[in-house]
Amino acid sequence: MKDKGIALVISGPSGAGKGTLVKMLTQEFPNITFSVSYTTRRPRRGEKQGIDYFFVDKERFKELVERDFFAEWAQVHGNFYGTPKIEIEQRLDKGLDVIFDIDVQGARKLKQNLKDGVFVFIMPPGIEELRDRLEKRGTDSKEVVEKRLKNAKKEIDAAREFDFIVVNDILSEAYERLRCIYIAQKSRVYPDR
Amino acid sequence: MKDKGIALVISGPSGAGKGTLVKMLTQEFPNITFSVSYTTRRPRRGEKQGIDYFFVDKERFKELVERDFFAEWAQVHGNFYGTPKIEIEQRLDKGLDVIFDIDVQGARKLKQNLKDGVFVFIMPPGIEELRDRLEKRGTDSKEVVEKRLKNAKKEIDAAREFDFIVVNDILSEAYERLRCIYIAQKSRVYPDR
Repeated sequence: MKDKGIALVISGPSGAGKGTLVKMLTQEFPNITFSVSYTTRRPRRGEKQGIDYFFVDKERFKELVERDFFAEWAQVHGNFYGTPKIEIEQRLDKGLDVIFDIDVQGARKLKQNLKDGVFVFIMPPGIEELRDRLEKRGTDSKEVVEKRLKNAKKEIDAAREFDFIVVNDILSEAYERLRCIYIAQKSRVYPDR
Repeated sequence: MKDKGIALVISGPSGAGKGTLVKMLTQEFPNITFSVSYTTRRPRRGEKQGIDYFFVDKERFKELVERDFFAEWAQVHGNFYGTPKIEIEQRLDKGLDVIFDIDVQGARKLKQNLKDGVFVFIMPPGIEELRDRLEKRGTDSKEVVEKRLKNAKKEIDAAREFDFIVVNDILSEAYERLRCIYIAQKSRVYPDR
């Protein structure tokens, strides 16, 4: 019998570097499959429908919520994000690992549906560093940056609810920690944390 | 305040490769200090007093047992082995990590004294492979090899009592897993497992 896969939930404030770390991990380990979320926000440059997100309008999103389609959904910075239930358990049962790149609110809700998941908080090195990154990314207005920063401060307080904290100061070091968390989890006798 | 150190207990049957893996880990991570055991067995070629073990005679060992000096002690293959309580908690409080290279009986007893320890079982790839290794090591008589193998079979059944299992088939891969278990543990929010 094949071992059940691991649900790896990667969360943290906007700009902490979740997306980059998740991409690196899925590139190194082909057994990790990406859980594609639904969102009502607009695609950023280079983002592809069905790969980065399923981009839908608010009407369609509400329809899916009513059909109990999501393991979790949330409104963040005025947009809706949701994780489809479909396939998650199927994938885990097949022995595939499933990774989630998700905001803190979403991670909290996932925790209710994924009791055996491994919850990792990606911590930016400091609020000023975070502001720099968000401003350099240049995809958000000054107002949105301030909103994201205010949320970030709240979210950092949430870090202690997670199983692991990875500080993303130097990317290569943060990645080394994240991949080790994954590898170690694969050696657990009771892979339930 | 400095974080408390981690007690890392490395166990498994004789010939599984515990010693080699522990040496590699302590060489890579200077924060990991080696818990030197007391033993009544004879030094193997190259082993040094106070570095590899404290070699003592049976009389001295019994004296120390009576003084409640050991966190655990056991008789294995006719010899006595013991882990001194002294310094362990002090080292952990200072933020140093402490590693134990110990047989399965000893690991079981340590579990009672080190509730927050991380317990790793090093698993040989198979009994035949283990026999080869013990015979090639050439330090034991045929009779002792048979005794060790008999114990090994019992000990492998004990693996599920541990937190992690690392199969030592290819040394570099086993080491990668072990170092990841250590690194991941350093990122735990509640480092109590």
